[in-house]
Amino acid sequence: MLTTELQHKIDFKTKPLGALGHLEHLAHKIGMVQNTTSPQLCNPHMVVFAADHGIATAGVSAYPQEVTYQMVMNFLGGGAAINVFCRQQGINIKIVDAGVNFDFPEGLKLIDKKVRKSSRNMLEEPAMTSEEYQQALDNGRSVVAEIAETGCNIIGFGEMGIGNTSASSLMMSKLFNLPVISCIGRGTGLNDDQLQNKINILSAAIEKYPNVTAPDEVAQTFGGLEIAQMIGAMEEAYRQNMLIMVDGFIATVAMATAWKKNPEILKNSIFCHVSDENAHLQLLELLGQKALLNLNLRLGEGTGCALAYPIIQSAVNFLNEMSSFEDAQVSNKE
Amino acid sequence: MLTTELQHKIDFKTKPLGALGHLEHLAHKIGMVQNTTSPQLCNPHMVVFAADHGIATAGVSAYPQEVTYQMVMNFLGGGAAINVFCRQQGINIKIVDAGVNFDFPEGLKLIDKKVRKSSRNMLEEPAMTSEEYQQALDNGRSVVAEIAETGCNIIGFGEMGIGNTSASSLMMSKLFNLPVISCIGRGTGLNDDQLQNKINILSAAIEKYPNVTAPDEVAQTFGGLEIAQMIGAMEEAYRQNMLIMVDGFIATVAMATAWKKNPEILKNSIFCHVSDENAHLQLLELLGQKALLNLNLRLGEGTGCALAYPIIQSAVNFLNEMSSFEDAQVSNKE
Repeated sequence: MLTTELQHKIDFKTKPLGALGHLEHLAHKIGMVQNTTSPQLCNPHMVVFAADHGIATAGVSAYPQEVTYQMVMNFLGGGAAINVFCRQQGINIKIVDAGVNFDFPEGLKLIDKKVRKSSRNMLEEPAMTSEEYQQALDNGRSVVAEIAETGCNIIGFGEMGIGNTSASSLMMSKLFNLPVISCIGRGTGLNDDQLQNKINILSAAIEKYPNVTAPDEVAQTFGGLEIAQMIGAMEEAYRQNMLIMVDGFIATVAMATAWKKNPEILKNSIFCHVSDENAHLQLLELLGQKALLNLNLRLGEGTGCALAYPIIQSAVNFLNEMSSFEDAQVSNKE
Repeated sequence: MLTTELQHKIDFKTKPLGALGHLEHLAHKIGMVQNTTSPQLCNPHMVVFAADHGIATAGVSAYPQEVTYQMVMNFLGGGAAINVFCRQQGINIKIVDAGVNFDFPEGLKLIDKKVRKSSRNMLEEPAMTSEEYQQALDNGRSVVAEIAETGCNIIGFGEMGIGNTSASSLMMSKLFNLPVISCIGRGTGLNDDQLQNKINILSAAIEKYPNVTAPDEVAQTFGGLEIAQMIGAMEEAYRQNMLIMVDGFIATVAMATAWKKNPEILKNSIFCHVSDENAHLQLLELLGQKALLNLNLRLGEGTGCALAYPIIQSAVNFLNEMSSFEDAQVSNKE
């Protein structure tokens, strides 16, 4: 049995039993996914999906909507946090326009998967039509399918979209049948008045769609185009048997949606960090998951994945490279 | 003022205010230590001090004493966890014989700083004479002074010594005037009976020296040769204005001793992880420190430092490489 072989290999490394803690669980998990006691991480990728949100015009964010396209330009220029961390770790980065409210010039290294300019305003109509949502899922899948052809077996997903913590809070509330207020946080940094305004707006949005409960319907109604593409991307990454690095609150909501559709996806998922955004820890607990890092990050973009990547690599490395008690002629426990 | 300049540089990076959490504090701290808004990590080193403990013969550990020298041989062969992680991160590793109870063959890449073969049995006499303790401090200092000449400005310290969680628990108890039982854990993995035995032995040791309270006296009486060398090494690293990466319980006890002698040392110290060993979290709280990682490690060797190193590098990199709102033409908060 592979699970026993892996545990034996881990237990007979030159260290007290269990002394590498979370890294040991991770090594075991990665071995199980790759069906080997000698796993490898190959050609790691980070995909950042960007889109705008109809609800952003209602004033749910501390930043203006144009920050979405400006940050996309910043990603393309290599100056954002996720660029810095991916460069450091040798992670390939891809930027996807999933639905940014901007006409980008030609010739950029931007993957054009725009379904429409911004999701619709959910205070008036569902964020996406059924066709738009399906298109977004497909687009996300196609991005990952192409990356899989490069031999990549570990992938992380980031997002950029002014207003997307609002979309995520609503999705979490609906997916887990929780009061929306328990799923709301300060996003990029709302003050008390702005937070109250966000609560009022999101409460109105929730009340408008009392009968929406199925995961895809929830994502279509309350999600965003980048969140929908991320759901499709995660599903495809699972289908390709990749390791899936899950970032912060928004990425975890996308994963929770995919998990509602197919709980098996968690076998391939590594939860990289617990965000400072209010509801993220609660969401991880609902999924029964413990994150690798807790650095009070609340940036998104996939930054938590990129920062956790070397730890995932360390789990693989100790499994492959450490001596056993026998090899090193070290006495085991008496 | 440098502190203001650093904070300004951090705050105007293209991210919401404070969104990089703990990394922002770290970037600020490193800038202050290096007296620049553009710090660099140069030639990182990990020094692993190994020694045996007189008290180990009383049966306080789950492993036999010969594991100390066997693990030194494993370090020299490159097969231990700390070797794997240092290789991954490009950290130079040095192994120091501070007092291992073994005659090592000639020609090994082992730094010979042996003060004596094993500390004395503190149940009968102080673990070190005053001369032995001073020699150990000096030896630790000299190791770091030599490394400083290579241009290294960040250094971590690991340890190996069967019995050294016992020595550390006793030191913590004395340094902070805490009941010894609140400072004791399962070390490398004691069962309930073995833990009770450890508690009995350490309680007897504590009762034997009621008047020992000054930090150096505590370390001399209850410490080990590797712990004493680590204290000296940390003091020298501070004197050289290096960044000091602090590992788990034992390294933190060494740091607490140095801190009692000179509280300024914390300015240069980065607490890398909180260990699964019982008293470590409490000790960090006594020092007013939050650790970077919490991965349930309890291995020592400096493994927590090596795993945290890429995160420290990320803090430096975002400070140096991320665009500002102005550079990237991104709109700031409204």
